[in-house]
Amino acid sequence: MAHLTLADAQAVIAAALAHAREKSLAPMAVAVLDARGALKAFAAEEGTALRRADIAIGKAYGALAMGVGSRTLGKRAEERPHFIASVTQAIGGSMVPVAGGVLIRDDDKNILGAVGATGDTSDNDEAAALAGLSAAGLTADPS
Amino acid sequence: MAHLTLADAQAVIAAALAHAREKSLAPMAVAVLDARGALKAFAAEEGTALRRADIAIGKAYGALAMGVGSRTLGKRAEERPHFIASVTQAIGGSMVPVAGGVLIRDDDKNILGAVGATGDTSDNDEAAALAGLSAAGLTADPS
Amino acid sequence: MAHLTLADAQAVIAAALAHAREKSLAPMAVAVLDARGALKAFAAEEGTALRRADIAIGKAYGALAMGVGSRTLGKRAEERPHFIASVTQAIGGSMVPVAGGVLIRDDDKNILGAVGATGDTSDNDEAAALAGLSAAGLTADPS
Amino acid sequence: MAHLTLADAQAVIAAALAHAREKSLAPMAVAVLDARGALKAFAAEEGTALRRADIAIGKAYGALAMGVGSRTLGKRAEERPHFIASVTQAIGGSMVPVAGGVLIRDDDKNILGAVGATGDTSDNDEAAALAGLSAAGLTADPS
Repeated sequence: MAHLTLADAQAVIAAALAHAREKSLAPMAVAVLDARGALKAFAAEEGTALRRADIAIGKAYGALAMGVGSRTLGKRAEERPHFIASVTQAIGGSMVPVAGGVLIRDDDKNILGAVGATGDTSDNDEAAALAGLSAAGLTADPS
Repeated sequence: MAHLTLADAQAVIAAALAHAREKSLAPMAVAVLDARGALKAFAAEEGTALRRADIAIGKAYGALAMGVGSRTLGKRAEERPHFIASVTQAIGGSMVPVAGGVLIRDDDKNILGAVGATGDTSDNDEAAALAGLSAAGLTADPS
Repeated sequence: MAHLTLADAQAVIAAALAHAREKSLAPMAVAVLDARGALKAFAAEEGTALRRADIAIGKAYGALAMGVGSRTLGKRAEERPHFIASVTQAIGGSMVPVAGGVLIRDDDKNILGAVGATGDTSDNDEAAALAGLSAAGLTADPS
Repeated sequence: MAHLTLADAQAVIAAALAHAREKSLAPMAVAVLDARGALKAFAAEEGTALRRADIAIGKAYGALAMGVGSRTLGKRAEERPHFIASVTQAIGGSMVPVAGGVLIRDDDKNILGAVGATGDTSDNDEAAALAGLSAAGLTADPS
């Protein structure tokens, strides 16, 4: 099983922010967590709101906690709000179930980590995360 | 009143995981709590997502906390979400109100503990918990 | 990098408890966490006190959180109590800085997980954890 | 009043990690917070223990919380442990009172943010933070 390096994580962030600037998105924060759920790298652009780091981390952490992208967690939250609310409590709070949290997998489908992006609409946040992973040559799993 | 032994708990887990493999379910985590809500035994298969332990424990703990199976808690959460949300807060967070948390009773209906299973759909999780209890010769109360 | 399997974790627990019975130690609880800090397997003998699971997990989790055995964390807690107290707060509470939490490493010194044992004196707890790892053919790092 | 930019924060981290590699320090994690206490940038090298991010952030956040470097907080913790313990509780937990958390000031002594470094001894952690600030042309206040 491969590992996510700091260089990988920094490349994802650089490319996600480049995408955000090219598309003129709102100020963006991007977090990359490793497979342990530990923060590997993070950056917040000028003008991001006070708690954007927690949101970026919560999107990525929620994806890792449950093993699915935060877009899927958002669908489940709509279908069964009590389930997602209770899991959020059970894991101690860090889970943001809207698009923008994307799993990173290796060629054998093992989870290497997750990216969480936040600042614009959740669809645009996810597009930035995916652009970052693509540019860094990593396999994204937004499902 | 009988007591749940470690051998009982380990037998439940072994049989629940055997059921999961036989049915090709997704990687599963199973927790057994005693009547005090204390963790008695636990196992997580390879490939389980990061926070499955908290979900398995939360299903079993919620069942013990309220004296009904987590399937019933799920129904109550749909009917009165504020009630389940407030109980979750009141008990400090560990309560996951979806099927898969099953009470264990003795012949006099005393509660001996609870099993919580998670990994696949909640119906399949509950089936694995029930299979484990049945194989271990323990009386399940999923209601 | 190798991975800790459920079979590994269960072998560690079985051998640690066998050691505890052979030495007539007090009732023991043993937790095995993987490299992510996720609970992999757990068992508590009959007669363990109410919150032994949290202590076993806290010994193992503290070791993983800081990358040193819980015996070393105990020494640091004596030398600089405010440091260990603050780290415990910063990581959300699960850290028990006394002997009995032992890192598991692969041949390349990568951390595969940690064992936490509790029930008797902390020296005896650590001896049980080490006996479990030795019997399972895993490399212990109690330092 | 000047502001800390993302480019500033990333320059601090790059130089702090370059210092750590040049001095062969243990794997290091470095966090930069802005004046609001919001995470601006973060990086963790390969091999950092599971919860190093919380420690790095806690050093920097503690410095901002009290308006003095974490080295001074460490001295206060030795002199009046109950005071630092109570402040840690009061601010919700993120405060690590050992050297390695350094305030960043502008030419008028306004606080622009703080750096927190962790991985090696606390003296070496602080040296890495100071090297990072110096290389980035920012004014450090470790006191």
